[in-house]
Amino acid sequence: MKMFLDCLPCSLRQALEAGRMATDRPELQEKILEDSLKILSGYKNYRCSPDMARDIHLAVKEITGISDPYESIKKRDIQSAKNVYPILVRFLQEKGNSLYWALKIAATGNIIDSAVYHSDRDIEECLEKELQKEFNICDIGILEEKLKTAKNLLVIADNAGETVFDRILAEHFKHLDITYAVRSGPIINDATVQDALASGLGDCTRVISTGCSTPGVILEETSREFMEVFNSADIVFSKGQGNFEAISDPGRPLFYLLKAKCTVIAREFGVALNEYIFKYIGI
Amino acid sequence: MKMFLDCLPCSLRQALEAGRMATDRPELQEKILEDSLKILSGYKNYRCSPDMARDIHLAVKEITGISDPYESIKKRDIQSAKNVYPILVRFLQEKGNSLYWALKIAATGNIIDSAVYHSDRDIEECLEKELQKEFNICDIGILEEKLKTAKNLLVIADNAGETVFDRILAEHFKHLDITYAVRSGPIINDATVQDALASGLGDCTRVISTGCSTPGVILEETSREFMEVFNSADIVFSKGQGNFEAISDPGRPLFYLLKAKCTVIAREFGVALNEYIFKYIGI
Repeated sequence: MKMFLDCLPCSLRQALEAGRMATDRPELQEKILEDSLKILSGYKNYRCSPDMARDIHLAVKEITGISDPYESIKKRDIQSAKNVYPILVRFLQEKGNSLYWALKIAATGNIIDSAVYHSDRDIEECLEKELQKEFNICDIGILEEKLKTAKNLLVIADNAGETVFDRILAEHFKHLDITYAVRSGPIINDATVQDALASGLGDCTRVISTGCSTPGVILEETSREFMEVFNSADIVFSKGQGNFEAISDPGRPLFYLLKAKCTVIAREFGVALNEYIFKYIGI
Repeated sequence: MKMFLDCLPCSLRQALEAGRMATDRPELQEKILEDSLKILSGYKNYRCSPDMARDIHLAVKEITGISDPYESIKKRDIQSAKNVYPILVRFLQEKGNSLYWALKIAATGNIIDSAVYHSDRDIEECLEKELQKEFNICDIGILEEKLKTAKNLLVIADNAGETVFDRILAEHFKHLDITYAVRSGPIINDATVQDALASGLGDCTRVISTGCSTPGVILEETSREFMEVFNSADIVFSKGQGNFEAISDPGRPLFYLLKAKCTVIAREFGVALNEYIFKYIGI
Protein backbone atom coordinates (compact mmCIF):
# COMPACT_ATOMS: atom_id res chain seq x y z
CA MET A 1 0.00 0.00 0.00
CA LYS A 2 1.33 3.44 -0.83
CA MET A 3 1.85 5.95 1.93
CA PHE A 4 -0.89 8.46 2.72
CA LEU A 5 -0.44 11.97 4.07
CA ASP A 6 -2.32 10.85 7.19
CA CYS A 7 0.67 8.60 7.96
CA LEU A 8 2.90 11.63 8.59
CA PRO A 9 1.32 13.08 11.77
CA CYS A 10 0.68 9.54 13.03
CA SER A 11 4.34 8.58 12.46
CA LEU A 12 5.49 11.70 14.29
CA ARG A 13 3.24 10.85 17.22
CA GLN A 14 4.70 7.33 17.30
CA ALA A 15 8.23 8.77 17.19
CA LEU A 16 7.47 10.88 20.26
CA GLU A 17 5.95 7.90 22.02
CA ALA A 18 8.96 5.70 21.24
CA GLY A 19 11.32 8.48 22.31
CA ARG A 20 9.58 8.80 25.64
CA MET A 21 9.64 5.06 26.09
CA ALA A 22 13.39 4.97 25.42
CA THR A 23 14.53 7.98 27.44
CA ASP A 24 13.49 10.47 30.11
CA ARG A 25 15.99 13.06 28.88
CA PRO A 26 14.11 15.96 27.22
CA GLU A 27 17.08 16.91 25.01
CA LEU A 28 17.17 13.40 23.54
CA GLN A 29 13.40 13.41 23.02
CA GLU A 30 13.79 16.73 21.18
CA LYS A 31 16.55 15.30 19.00
CA ILE A 32 14.33 12.31 18.16
CA LEU A 33 11.52 14.61 17.07
CA GLU A 34 13.90 16.81 15.07
CA ASP A 35 15.42 13.81 13.29
CA SER A 36 11.96 12.39 12.69
CA LEU A 37 10.86 15.63 11.04
CA LYS A 38 13.83 15.30 8.64
CA ILE A 39 12.86 11.71 7.89
CA LEU A 40 9.24 12.74 7.34
CA SER A 41 10.37 15.46 4.91
CA GLY A 42 11.69 12.69 2.69
CA TYR A 43 8.48 10.65 2.90
CA LYS A 44 8.30 10.30 -0.87
CA ASN A 45 11.51 8.26 -0.85
CA TYR A 46 9.89 5.47 1.14
CA ARG A 47 7.98 2.57 -0.35
CA CYS A 48 5.44 2.49 2.44
CA SER A 49 4.82 3.71 5.95
CA PRO A 50 6.60 0.75 7.68
CA ASP A 51 9.66 1.50 5.53
CA MET A 52 9.75 5.05 6.93
CA ALA A 53 8.94 3.80 10.44
CA ARG A 54 12.11 1.73 10.37
CA ASP A 55 14.25 4.84 9.89
CA ILE A 56 12.40 6.71 12.62
CA HIS A 57 12.85 3.89 15.12
CA LEU A 58 16.47 3.47 14.04
CA ALA A 59 16.96 7.13 14.96
CA VAL A 60 15.34 6.48 18.36
CA LYS A 61 17.76 3.63 18.96
CA GLU A 62 20.84 5.57 17.81
CA ILE A 63 20.01 8.69 19.77
CA THR A 64 19.18 6.89 23.01
CA GLY A 65 21.46 3.88 22.75
CA ILE A 66 18.45 1.70 23.66
CA SER A 67 18.17 -1.17 21.19
CA ASP A 68 14.65 -2.20 22.16
CA PRO A 69 12.60 0.64 23.73
CA TYR A 70 9.47 -1.52 23.71
CA GLU A 71 11.09 -4.49 25.47
CA SER A 72 9.19 -4.10 28.74
CA ILE A 73 5.94 -3.24 26.95
CA LYS A 74 6.26 -6.41 24.89
CA LYS A 75 6.96 -8.52 27.97
CA ARG A 76 3.95 -6.99 29.71
CA ASP A 77 1.71 -7.58 26.67
CA ILE A 78 2.83 -11.19 26.30
CA GLN A 79 2.18 -11.80 30.00
CA SER A 80 -1.25 -10.10 29.81
CA ALA A 81 -2.14 -12.22 26.80
CA LYS A 82 -0.96 -15.37 28.57
CA ASN A 83 -3.19 -14.44 31.50
CA VAL A 84 -6.24 -14.33 29.23
CA TYR A 85 -5.24 -17.41 27.23
CA PRO A 86 -7.59 -19.71 29.25
CA ILE A 87 -10.43 -17.25 28.53
CA LEU A 88 -9.67 -17.57 24.81
CA VAL A 89 -9.68 -21.38 24.95
CA ARG A 90 -13.00 -21.38 26.81
CA PHE A 91 -14.47 -18.82 24.40
CA LEU A 92 -13.59 -21.00 21.41
CA GLN A 93 -15.06 -24.09 23.12
CA GLU A 94 -18.29 -22.18 23.72
CA LYS A 95 -18.34 -21.32 20.03
CA GLY A 96 -18.06 -25.01 19.15
CA ASN A 97 -14.36 -24.74 18.21
CA SER A 98 -15.40 -23.24 14.90
CA LEU A 99 -12.93 -22.07 12.29
CA TYR A 100 -14.68 -18.66 12.17
CA TRP A 101 -14.07 -17.95 15.84
CA ALA A 102 -10.52 -19.33 15.81
CA LEU A 103 -9.78 -16.78 13.08
CA LYS A 104 -11.63 -14.12 15.00
CA ILE A 105 -9.57 -14.73 18.14
CA ALA A 106 -6.34 -14.34 16.14
CA ALA A 107 -7.68 -11.09 14.65
CA THR A 108 -8.72 -9.85 18.08
CA GLY A 109 -5.15 -10.29 19.30
CA ASN A 110 -4.43 -7.31 17.09
CA ILE A 111 -5.92 -5.02 19.80
CA ILE A 112 -2.72 -5.55 21.76
CA ASP A 113 -0.80 -2.89 19.92
CA SER A 114 1.15 -0.40 21.94
CA ALA A 115 1.89 1.58 18.81
CA VAL A 116 -1.73 2.62 18.57
CA TYR A 117 -3.31 1.90 21.97
CA HIS A 118 -0.90 3.79 24.18
CA SER A 119 -2.99 4.17 27.29
CA ASP A 120 -2.67 1.75 30.19
CA ARG A 121 -5.79 -0.10 29.19
CA ASP A 122 -6.67 -3.35 30.81
CA ILE A 123 -6.68 -5.96 28.05
CA GLU A 124 -9.15 -8.20 29.85
CA GLU A 125 -11.64 -5.39 30.20
CA CYS A 126 -12.20 -4.85 26.50
CA LEU A 127 -11.45 -8.42 25.43
CA GLU A 128 -14.95 -9.91 25.83
CA LYS A 129 -16.53 -7.07 23.83
CA GLU A 130 -13.91 -7.31 21.08
CA LEU A 131 -14.10 -11.11 20.84
CA GLN A 132 -17.85 -11.02 20.26
CA LYS A 133 -17.58 -8.50 17.37
CA GLU A 134 -17.97 -10.33 14.06
CA PHE A 135 -15.85 -9.80 10.94
CA ASN A 136 -17.06 -7.13 8.52
CA ILE A 137 -15.24 -8.85 5.66
CA CYS A 138 -14.80 -12.61 5.99
CA ASP A 139 -13.62 -14.76 3.08
CA ILE A 140 -13.90 -17.94 5.14
CA GLY A 141 -15.51 -19.88 2.26
CA ILE A 142 -12.33 -19.57 0.20
CA LEU A 143 -10.24 -20.70 3.17
CA GLU A 144 -12.47 -23.74 3.76
CA GLU A 145 -12.02 -24.73 0.13
CA LYS A 146 -8.23 -24.44 0.39
CA LEU A 147 -8.16 -26.37 3.67
CA LYS A 148 -9.51 -29.44 1.89
CA THR A 149 -6.11 -30.01 0.31
CA ALA A 150 -3.72 -27.75 2.24
CA LYS A 151 -0.78 -29.32 4.05
CA ASN A 152 0.98 -26.24 5.33
CA LEU A 153 0.31 -22.69 6.46
CA LEU A 154 2.49 -19.60 6.80
CA VAL A 155 1.52 -16.92 9.31
CA ILE A 156 3.27 -13.56 8.95
CA ALA A 157 3.09 -12.27 12.49
CA ASP A 158 2.44 -8.82 13.86
CA ASN A 159 2.76 -7.71 17.49
CA ALA A 160 4.04 -9.28 20.67
CA GLY A 161 1.10 -10.36 22.81
CA GLU A 162 -1.02 -10.92 19.72
CA THR A 163 1.32 -13.89 19.32
CA VAL A 164 -0.44 -15.65 22.21
CA PHE A 165 -3.78 -15.24 20.44
CA ASP A 166 -2.20 -16.76 17.34
CA ARG A 167 -1.47 -19.90 19.34
CA ILE A 168 -5.23 -20.53 19.44
CA LEU A 169 -5.30 -20.46 15.65
CA ALA A 170 -2.17 -22.63 15.36
CA GLU A 171 -3.61 -25.17 17.78
CA HIS A 172 -6.84 -25.20 15.75
CA PHE A 173 -4.85 -26.19 12.65
CA LYS A 174 -3.19 -29.21 14.28
CA HIS A 175 -3.21 -31.16 11.02
CA LEU A 176 -1.19 -28.46 9.18
CA ASP A 177 2.52 -27.83 9.13
CA ILE A 178 2.68 -24.21 10.33
CA THR A 179 5.49 -21.69 9.92
CA TYR A 180 5.27 -18.57 12.05
CA ALA A 181 7.38 -15.72 10.61
CA VAL A 182 8.40 -12.71 12.71
CA ARG A 183 10.59 -9.60 12.42
CA SER A 184 14.35 -10.11 12.27
CA GLY A 185 14.95 -7.60 15.07
CA PRO A 186 13.10 -5.42 17.57
CA ILE A 187 10.98 -2.67 16.00
CA ILE A 188 8.18 -0.92 17.92
CA ASN A 189 6.21 -3.70 19.67
CA ASP A 190 6.43 -6.16 16.79
CA ALA A 191 7.13 -9.78 17.62
CA THR A 192 10.64 -11.23 17.25
CA VAL A 193 11.69 -14.89 17.47
CA GLN A 194 12.26 -14.42 21.20
CA ASP A 195 8.75 -12.97 21.66
CA ALA A 196 7.15 -15.78 19.64
CA LEU A 197 8.94 -18.42 21.69
CA ALA A 198 8.00 -16.65 24.94
CA SER A 199 4.39 -16.82 23.72
CA GLY A 200 4.55 -20.61 23.39
CA LEU A 201 4.54 -20.72 19.60
CA GLY A 202 7.57 -23.01 19.54
CA ASP A 203 5.30 -25.89 20.61
CA CYS A 204 2.81 -25.65 17.77
CA THR A 205 4.64 -23.91 14.91
CA ARG A 206 8.07 -23.54 13.37
CA VAL A 207 9.15 -20.01 14.30
CA ILE A 208 11.38 -18.24 11.75
CA SER A 209 12.57 -14.71 11.07
CA THR A 210 11.44 -13.04 7.84
CA GLY A 211 14.93 -11.55 7.60
CA CYS A 212 13.36 -8.10 7.56
CA SER A 213 12.88 -5.76 10.51
CA THR A 214 10.46 -3.19 9.15
CA PRO A 215 7.17 -3.09 11.11
CA GLY A 216 5.43 -4.70 8.15
CA VAL A 217 7.24 -7.20 5.95
CA ILE A 218 8.78 -5.78 2.76
CA LEU A 219 9.12 -8.88 0.59
CA GLU A 220 12.11 -7.55 -1.36
CA GLU A 221 14.07 -7.40 1.88
CA THR A 222 13.27 -10.82 3.29
CA SER A 223 15.63 -13.80 3.48
CA ARG A 224 15.79 -16.58 0.91
CA GLU A 225 14.56 -19.02 3.58
CA PHE A 226 11.48 -16.91 4.19
CA MET A 227 10.73 -16.43 0.49
CA GLU A 228 10.91 -20.18 -0.07
CA VAL A 229 8.30 -20.74 2.63
CA PHE A 230 6.25 -17.80 1.36
CA ASN A 231 6.20 -19.04 -2.21
CA SER A 232 5.54 -22.69 -1.40
CA ALA A 233 2.96 -22.38 1.41
CA ASP A 234 -0.50 -23.67 0.58
CA ILE A 235 -2.05 -20.90 2.63
CA VAL A 236 -0.59 -17.57 3.83
CA PHE A 237 -2.06 -15.38 6.56
CA SER A 238 -0.71 -11.82 6.78
CA LYS A 239 -1.56 -10.33 10.15
CA GLY A 240 -2.07 -6.70 11.14
CA GLN A 241 -1.96 -3.33 9.46
CA GLY A 242 1.81 -3.09 9.05
CA ASN A 243 2.09 -6.20 6.90
CA PHE A 244 -0.87 -5.08 4.79
CA GLU A 245 0.80 -1.68 4.26
CA ALA A 246 4.14 -3.23 3.34
CA ILE A 247 3.06 -6.11 1.08
CA SER A 248 2.16 -4.14 -2.01
CA ASP A 249 2.37 -6.95 -4.52
CA PRO A 250 2.40 -10.41 -2.90
CA GLY A 251 2.68 -12.21 -6.25
CA ARG A 252 0.68 -15.09 -4.76
CA PRO A 253 -2.72 -15.46 -3.08
CA LEU A 254 -2.97 -14.64 0.61
CA PHE A 255 -5.38 -13.77 3.39
CA TYR A 256 -5.14 -10.50 5.34
CA LEU A 257 -6.27 -10.91 8.94
CA LEU A 258 -6.50 -7.66 10.88
CA LYS A 259 -8.45 -5.02 12.70
CA ALA A 260 -8.72 -1.70 10.83
CA LYS A 261 -7.35 0.55 13.54
CA CYS A 262 -6.77 3.68 11.49
CA THR A 263 -8.99 5.55 9.06
CA VAL A 264 -6.62 5.06 6.12
CA ILE A 265 -6.66 1.26 6.38
CA ALA A 266 -10.41 1.24 7.01
CA ARG A 267 -10.92 3.30 3.84
CA GLU A 268 -8.69 0.94 1.82
CA PHE A 269 -10.93 -2.00 2.80
CA GLY A 270 -14.13 0.04 2.60
CA VAL A 271 -15.08 -0.63 6.21
CA ALA A 272 -15.66 1.52 9.28
CA LEU A 273 -12.89 2.20 11.79
CA ASN A 274 -12.22 -0.69 14.21
CA GLU A 275 -13.89 -3.34 12.06
CA TYR A 276 -12.36 -6.81 11.71
CA ILE A 277 -11.24 -8.12 8.33
CA PHE A 278 -10.38 -11.55 6.92
CA LYS A 279 -9.81 -10.74 3.28
CA TYR A 280 -8.58 -13.01 0.50
CA ILE A 281 -6.42 -11.57 -2.28
CA GLY A 282 -5.93 -13.78 -5.35
CA ILE A 283 -3.18 -13.32 -7.92
CA MET B 1 2.66 28.49 28.00
CA LYS B 2 5.75 27.09 26.32
CA MET B 3 5.39 24.66 23.46
CA PHE B 4 5.48 20.94 24.16
CA LEU B 5 6.73 18.21 21.85
CA ASP B 6 3.18 16.81 21.80
CA CYS B 7 2.17 19.98 19.93
CA LEU B 8 4.21 18.93 16.86
CA PRO B 9 2.26 15.84 15.69
CA CYS B 10 -0.99 17.57 16.63
CA SER B 11 -0.05 20.67 14.60
CA LEU B 12 0.82 18.48 11.62
CA ARG B 13 -2.55 16.74 11.87
CA GLN B 14 -4.27 20.12 11.94
CA ALA B 15 -2.27 21.25 8.91
CA LEU B 16 -3.49 18.23 6.96
CA GLU B 17 -7.04 18.86 8.09
CA ALA B 18 -6.88 22.52 7.07
CA GLY B 19 -5.28 21.59 3.75
CA ARG B 20 -8.07 19.16 2.98
CA MET B 21 -10.64 21.73 3.96
CA ALA B 22 -9.07 24.30 1.63
CA THR B 23 -8.40 22.12 -1.44
CA ASP B 24 -9.19 18.79 -3.08
CA ARG B 25 -5.95 18.85 -5.09
CA PRO B 26 -3.54 16.21 -3.72
CA GLU B 27 -0.44 18.07 -4.94
CA LEU B 28 -1.44 21.16 -2.95
CA GLN B 29 -2.20 19.06 0.12
CA GLU B 30 1.29 17.51 -0.22
CA LYS B 31 2.85 20.97 -0.52
CA ILE B 32 1.02 22.07 2.63
CA LEU B 33 2.37 19.07 4.56
CA GLU B 34 5.88 19.63 3.23
CA ASP B 35 5.84 23.33 4.15
CA SER B 36 4.37 22.46 7.54
CA LEU B 37 7.23 20.04 8.20
CA LYS B 38 9.69 22.88 7.51
CA ILE B 39 7.78 25.13 9.90
CA LEU B 40 7.72 22.40 12.55
CA SER B 41 11.48 21.96 12.20
CA GLY B 42 11.86 25.52 13.46
CA TYR B 43 9.51 24.96 16.39
CA LYS B 44 12.00 26.41 18.86
CA ASN B 45 11.74 29.80 17.18
CA TYR B 46 8.09 30.15 18.16
CA ARG B 47 6.87 31.58 21.44
CA CYS B 48 3.98 29.16 21.73
CA SER B 49 1.94 26.71 19.71
CA PRO B 50 -0.59 29.30 18.42
CA ASP B 51 2.38 31.36 17.14
CA MET B 52 3.52 28.37 15.04
CA ALA B 53 -0.07 27.57 14.02
CA ARG B 54 -0.32 31.01 12.44
CA ASP B 55 2.57 30.23 10.07
CA ILE B 56 1.14 26.81 9.21
CA HIS B 57 -2.28 28.26 8.40
CA LEU B 58 -0.66 31.13 6.49
CA ALA B 59 1.02 28.47 4.34
CA VAL B 60 -2.35 26.79 3.77
CA LYS B 61 -3.80 30.11 2.62
CA GLU B 62 -0.85 30.98 0.37
CA ILE B 63 -0.66 27.55 -1.26
CA THR B 64 -4.38 27.23 -1.90
CA GLY B 65 -5.33 30.88 -2.40
CA ILE B 66 -8.21 30.30 0.03
CA SER B 67 -8.19 33.05 2.64
CA ASP B 68 -10.60 31.33 5.05
CA PRO B 69 -10.68 27.51 4.69
CA TYR B 70 -12.90 27.18 7.74
CA GLU B 71 -15.50 29.70 6.54
CA SER B 72 -18.24 27.16 5.88
CA ILE B 73 -17.39 25.17 9.04
CA LYS B 74 -17.68 28.34 11.09
CA LYS B 75 -21.03 29.24 9.51
CA ARG B 76 -22.29 25.72 10.18
CA ASP B 77 -21.09 25.83 13.81
CA ILE B 78 -22.67 29.23 14.44
CA GLN B 79 -25.95 28.01 12.96
CA SER B 80 -25.82 24.78 15.01
CA ALA B 81 -25.16 26.80 18.15
CA LYS B 82 -28.02 29.18 17.32
CA ASN B 83 -30.28 26.16 16.93
CA VAL B 84 -29.47 25.00 20.46
CA TYR B 85 -29.56 28.52 21.97
CA PRO B 86 -33.15 28.05 23.29
CA ILE B 87 -31.98 24.81 24.98
CA LEU B 88 -29.21 26.76 26.70
CA VAL B 89 -31.61 29.46 27.92
CA ARG B 90 -33.99 26.81 29.29
CA PHE B 91 -31.10 24.90 30.90
CA LEU B 92 -29.96 28.03 32.75
CA GLN B 93 -33.52 28.79 33.89
CA GLU B 94 -33.81 25.25 35.27
CA LYS B 95 -30.56 25.86 37.15
CA GLY B 96 -32.08 29.00 38.74
CA ASN B 97 -30.12 31.35 36.47
CA SER B 98 -27.07 30.77 38.66
CA LEU B 99 -23.69 32.32 37.95
CA TYR B 100 -22.07 28.86 38.13
CA TRP B 101 -24.15 27.45 35.29
CA ALA B 102 -23.88 30.61 33.17
CA LEU B 103 -20.11 30.17 33.35
CA LYS B 104 -20.47 26.46 32.68
CA ILE B 105 -22.55 27.07 29.54
CA ALA B 106 -19.87 29.43 28.20
CA ALA B 107 -17.20 26.80 28.94
CA THR B 108 -19.29 24.09 27.27
CA GLY B 109 -19.38 26.15 24.07
CA ASN B 110 -15.74 25.21 23.82
CA ILE B 111 -16.79 21.74 22.56
CA ILE B 112 -17.59 23.36 19.22
CA ASP B 113 -14.02 23.25 18.00
CA SER B 114 -13.36 21.98 14.52
CA ALA B 115 -9.64 22.10 15.18
CA VAL B 116 -9.96 19.21 17.63
CA TYR B 117 -13.38 17.64 17.04
CA HIS B 118 -13.15 16.95 13.32
CA SER B 119 -15.84 14.35 12.93
CA ASP B 120 -19.34 15.25 11.81
CA ARG B 121 -20.65 15.09 15.32
CA ASP B 122 -24.09 16.28 16.13
CA ILE B 123 -23.67 19.11 18.61
CA GLU B 124 -27.10 18.61 20.15
CA GLU B 125 -26.40 14.95 20.83
CA CYS B 126 -23.51 15.51 23.23
CA LEU B 127 -24.67 18.89 24.51
CA GLU B 128 -26.91 17.72 27.36
CA LYS B 129 -24.21 15.41 28.72
CA GLU B 130 -21.52 18.09 28.49
CA LEU B 131 -23.69 20.79 30.05
CA GLN B 132 -24.35 18.67 33.14
CA LYS B 133 -20.63 18.02 33.77
CA GLU B 134 -19.39 20.22 36.60
CA PHE B 135 -16.13 22.19 36.68
CA ASN B 136 -13.10 20.37 38.07
CA ILE B 137 -11.49 23.69 38.98
CA CYS B 138 -13.86 26.55 39.76
CA ASP B 139 -12.67 29.80 41.32
CA ILE B 140 -16.20 31.22 41.42
CA GLY B 141 -15.74 32.61 44.93
CA ILE B 142 -13.07 35.02 43.70
CA LEU B 143 -15.32 36.09 40.82
CA GLU B 144 -18.26 36.73 43.15
CA GLU B 145 -16.05 38.94 45.28
CA LYS B 146 -14.93 40.94 42.22
CA LEU B 147 -18.48 41.25 40.91
CA LYS B 148 -19.44 43.26 44.01
CA THR B 149 -17.58 46.28 42.62
CA ALA B 150 -16.91 45.44 38.94
CA LYS B 151 -18.31 47.73 36.27
CA ASN B 152 -16.87 46.13 33.18
CA LEU B 153 -15.76 42.80 31.79
CA LEU B 154 -13.50 41.76 28.93
CA VAL B 155 -14.02 38.39 27.26
CA ILE B 156 -11.18 37.16 25.03
CA ALA B 157 -13.07 34.91 22.65
CA ASP B 158 -12.18 31.56 21.17
CA ASN B 159 -14.08 29.72 18.42
CA ALA B 160 -17.00 30.53 16.16
CA GLY B 161 -20.12 28.79 17.45
CA GLU B 162 -18.82 28.97 21.01
CA THR B 163 -19.61 32.67 20.53
CA VAL B 164 -23.35 31.87 20.75
CA PHE B 165 -22.80 30.15 24.11
CA ASP B 166 -20.94 33.26 25.28
CA ARG B 167 -24.11 35.28 24.63
CA ILE B 168 -25.69 33.44 27.56
CA LEU B 169 -22.88 34.64 29.80
CA ALA B 170 -23.03 38.18 28.41
CA GLU B 171 -26.79 38.31 28.94
CA HIS B 172 -26.29 37.07 32.50
CA PHE B 173 -24.01 40.06 33.19
CA LYS B 174 -26.53 42.69 32.04
CA HIS B 175 -25.30 45.20 34.65
CA LEU B 176 -21.72 45.10 33.30
CA ASP B 177 -20.18 46.92 30.37
CA ILE B 178 -18.83 43.99 28.32
CA THR B 179 -16.14 44.01 25.61
CA TYR B 180 -15.89 40.90 23.45
CA ALA B 181 -12.46 40.64 21.76
CA VAL B 182 -11.90 38.37 18.77
CA ARG B 183 -9.13 37.55 16.24
CA SER B 184 -8.19 40.26 13.74
CA GLY B 185 -8.56 37.84 10.80
CA PRO B 186 -9.64 34.30 9.96
CA ILE B 187 -7.46 31.56 11.51
CA ILE B 188 -8.68 27.96 11.87
CA ASN B 189 -12.23 28.18 13.24
CA ASP B 190 -11.53 31.06 15.60
CA ALA B 191 -14.11 33.81 15.85
CA THR B 192 -13.65 37.09 13.97
CA VAL B 193 -15.71 40.29 14.33
CA GLN B 194 -17.99 39.02 11.57
CA ASP B 195 -18.54 35.69 13.39
CA ALA B 196 -19.22 37.44 16.70
CA LEU B 197 -21.78 39.71 15.10
CA ALA B 198 -23.39 36.76 13.29
CA SER B 199 -23.70 35.12 16.71
CA GLY B 200 -25.70 38.07 18.09
CA LEU B 201 -22.96 39.42 20.34
CA GLY B 202 -23.39 42.94 18.92
CA ASP B 203 -26.63 43.26 20.96
CA CYS B 204 -25.13 42.55 24.37
CA THR B 205 -21.41 43.39 24.10
CA ARG B 206 -19.02 45.73 22.34
CA VAL B 207 -17.25 43.52 19.79
CA ILE B 208 -13.64 44.48 19.02
CA SER B 209 -10.63 42.89 17.34
CA THR B 210 -7.58 42.12 19.47
CA GLY B 211 -5.45 43.24 16.53
CA CYS B 212 -3.82 39.82 16.53
CA SER B 213 -4.72 36.85 14.35
CA THR B 214 -2.89 33.96 16.05
CA PRO B 215 -5.26 31.24 17.31
CA GLY B 216 -4.58 32.37 20.87
CA VAL B 217 -3.93 36.03 21.67
CA ILE B 218 -0.25 37.02 21.91
CA LEU B 219 -0.42 40.20 23.98
CA GLU B 220 2.73 41.73 22.47
CA GLU B 221 1.02 41.70 19.07
CA THR B 222 -2.32 43.18 20.00
CA SER B 223 -3.57 46.69 19.19
CA ARG B 224 -3.29 49.65 21.53
CA GLU B 225 -7.11 49.76 21.71
CA PHE B 226 -7.21 46.16 22.91
CA MET B 227 -4.43 46.63 25.45
CA GLU B 228 -6.22 49.64 26.94
CA VAL B 229 -9.34 47.53 27.47
CA PHE B 230 -7.24 44.61 28.70
CA ASN B 231 -5.38 46.69 31.25
CA SER B 232 -8.37 48.64 32.51
CA ALA B 233 -11.04 45.90 32.66
CA ASP B 234 -12.26 45.01 36.15
CA ILE B 235 -12.57 41.37 35.15
CA VAL B 236 -11.00 39.46 32.23
CA PHE B 237 -12.14 36.06 30.97
CA SER B 238 -9.74 34.24 28.64
CA LYS B 239 -11.59 31.51 26.79
CA GLY B 240 -10.26 28.25 25.34
CA GLN B 241 -6.95 26.46 25.09
CA GLY B 242 -5.36 28.72 22.45
CA ASN B 243 -5.59 31.86 24.58
CA PHE B 244 -4.23 29.98 27.60
CA GLU B 245 -1.29 28.73 25.51
CA ALA B 246 -0.53 32.18 24.12
CA ILE B 247 -0.94 34.37 27.22
CA SER B 248 2.25 33.47 29.01
CA ASP B 249 2.46 36.48 31.28
CA PRO B 250 -0.80 38.43 31.49
CA GLY B 251 0.65 41.06 33.86
CA ARG B 252 -2.79 41.37 35.44
CA PRO B 253 -5.28 39.01 37.11
CA LEU B 254 -7.57 37.02 34.86
CA PHE B 255 -9.83 33.98 34.73
CA TYR B 256 -9.21 31.11 32.30
CA LEU B 257 -12.45 29.47 31.17
CA LEU B 258 -11.98 26.33 29.09
CA LYS B 259 -12.31 22.64 28.56
CA ALA B 260 -9.00 20.73 28.72
CA LYS B 261 -9.22 19.02 25.35
CA CYS B 262 -5.64 17.83 25.04
CA THR B 263 -3.40 15.95 27.46
CA VAL B 264 -0.82 18.76 27.59
CA ILE B 265 -3.32 21.37 28.76
CA ALA B 266 -4.93 18.90 31.18
CA ARG B 267 -1.50 18.21 32.68
CA GLU B 268 -0.78 21.94 33.04
CA PHE B 269 -3.94 22.35 35.12
CA GLY B 270 -3.51 19.02 36.90
CA VAL B 271 -6.88 17.69 35.72
CA ALA B 272 -8.01 14.73 33.62
CA LEU B 273 -8.61 15.06 29.90
CA ASN B 274 -11.93 16.72 28.97
CA GLU B 275 -12.47 18.34 32.36
CA TYR B 276 -13.84 21.89 32.63
CA ILE B 277 -11.82 24.67 34.21
CA PHE B 278 -12.59 28.14 35.58
CA LYS B 279 -9.24 29.16 37.01
CA TYR B 280 -8.19 32.48 38.51
CA ILE B 281 -4.63 33.72 38.04
CA GLY B 282 -3.56 36.66 40.23
CA ILE B 283 -0.55 38.86 39.57
